Amino acid sequence: MSLGATLAAGRTDIQTVLDDLLAPFDGAVGDAMRHATQGGKRLRGVLALECAALSGAPRDGALRLAAAIEAVHAYSLIHDDLPCMDDDDLRRGRPTVHRQWDEATAVLAGDALQTAAFEWLADPATDPDGALRADLVLTLARAAGARGMVRGQALDIAAESAATPLTLERITELQRLKTGCLLEWPCRAGAMLGRAEPAPLVAYAGHLGLAFQIVDDLLDVEGSAATLGKAVGKDAGAGKATFVSILGVAGARARAADLIAAARTALSPFGGRAAGLDALACYVLDRDR
Amino acid sequence: MSLGATLAAGRTDIQTVLDDLLAPFDGAVGDAMRHATQGGKRLRGVLALECAALSGAPRDGALRLAAAIEAVHAYSLIHDDLPCMDDDDLRRGRPTVHRQWDEATAVLAGDALQTAAFEWLADPATDPDGALRADLVLTLARAAGARGMVRGQALDIAAESAATPLTLERITELQRLKTGCLLEWPCRAGAMLGRAEPAPLVAYAGHLGLAFQIVDDLLDVEGSAATLGKAVGKDAGAGKATFVSILGVAGARARAADLIAAARTALSPFGGRAAGLDALACYVLDRDR
Repeated sequence: MSLGATLAAGRTDIQTVLDDLLAPFDGAVGDAMRHATQGGKRLRGVLALECAALSGAPRDGALRLAAAIEAVHAYSLIHDDLPCMDDDDLRRGRPTVHRQWDEATAVLAGDALQTAAFEWLADPATDPDGALRADLVLTLARAAGARGMVRGQALDIAAESAATPLTLERITELQRLKTGCLLEWPCRAGAMLGRAEPAPLVAYAGHLGLAFQIVDDLLDVEGSAATLGKAVGKDAGAGKATFVSILGVAGARARAADLIAAARTALSPFGGRAAGLDALACYVLDRDR
Repeated sequence: MSLGATLAAGRTDIQTVLDDLLAPFDGAVGDAMRHATQGGKRLRGVLALECAALSGAPRDGALRLAAAIEAVHAYSLIHDDLPCMDDDDLRRGRPTVHRQWDEATAVLAGDALQTAAFEWLADPATDPDGALRADLVLTLARAAGARGMVRGQALDIAAESAATPLTLERITELQRLKTGCLLEWPCRAGAMLGRAEPAPLVAYAGHLGLAFQIVDDLLDVEGSAATLGKAVGKDAGAGKATFVSILGVAGARARAADLIAAARTALSPFGGRAAGLDALACYVLDRDR
């Protein structure tokens, strides 16, 4: 199978596992949970699969890690899109959950997707070793909680009403929390599932996550809503400091390229076996959505 | 120590552990998490302590179970009080989180309290056995998620716009999910932590949970906002079917008394060692808040 076919097969398998795991949830909340976990780039899930495979972990367990991180990502998007947060109508080219249903359903569907992620990790089907399952829960909770992603979201909201724009250092820290933690976790978890040392994959993920966010800022300026499936120009419109507003378009693009080069270097211990992760790094730099 | 003093010491210890565990969270979200976990009856936390003690579990681990269930309860209240849900201004005699801060902070603080509960359970400080920690996460996630509490909340919202009022059978099922699951979990988890058979304590919790909700409905009709620390008469005002609207005040009170008698009977295998749980059952029936 070609590299592209392998990554595409990963995305398909993740959707199949998510559909299976979400099937028991009924009513509007269940429908909204499924709606929010359809489509998307599946970057976090594919990172889990690739890092698990590279670490020698079984595919079945890896797919549960992928489903869990995609569920947490979907929960964060549902709540982030709410009128009291970013107030977005469009996500992945479709109506956001509170537009398709209502705000109460969006709050509950996000809540339940977070719960489901921890349920799936803690289940013996993920791995026979209970201590490992508990560690997967612990590391994901640290990455997603009020010292991780939620802290990044809170800093982001605070930045909008701040008197002075953020410095590059503060934006880097904010984005490391808001986006980086949930891109790092699948790499760490994949290594844990294969009983491998997580450090090189965590280093890779650190560079990748920051590059990912810089490219996000570039796409907000240069991308089209049709391709991205969400609104563009929101940050510039809000006068918000971003990597692009501080570094300029050319500077931001150069910084992203440097980070992707560093991410690829972090893969050197694995040689050709890391071709999938290497391709993902290149994709993050060149993506148009 | 008298029974009352033992239960009061439990409430104080739970608050101390919650304060310690929440101390690392800063900013408005951290403040809101602390605000939402102050006060309250601590019924769920005290159930965890009493069931753990009865099962021979260590106090330190039991306090972490209590903190986790109180965090999940607080998260559910924060989100339930949002304008798009029950739209409440007052909780435990103080402003709700979205009134004291804003809706975005309330969404994030609720999200982060849920995450924190799973983080605390999965941490080795809860118990040395990783498989047990994973089981604690799994059972809590099942109780709180879209087949448990969240499903109950969704059914409750759907009932408000239903053409015909719910039957007694449907209200019982709705309340079992919405309230019962999170009253049952601390009893189950306390037994698990002490390596005891959960069945008798789970049976106790089932009767207690339903009685608790019937008394809640009675207090909504008969209680005062000053004592309860939250709005009263909301269900009757909304024309909502409750245990009281179907059974009448006297019928509902009799049903609650029968359930509490059944809960106390479920404790008979433990004899005098279950005096704390017996007292809690009596308190649930006689409470005025």
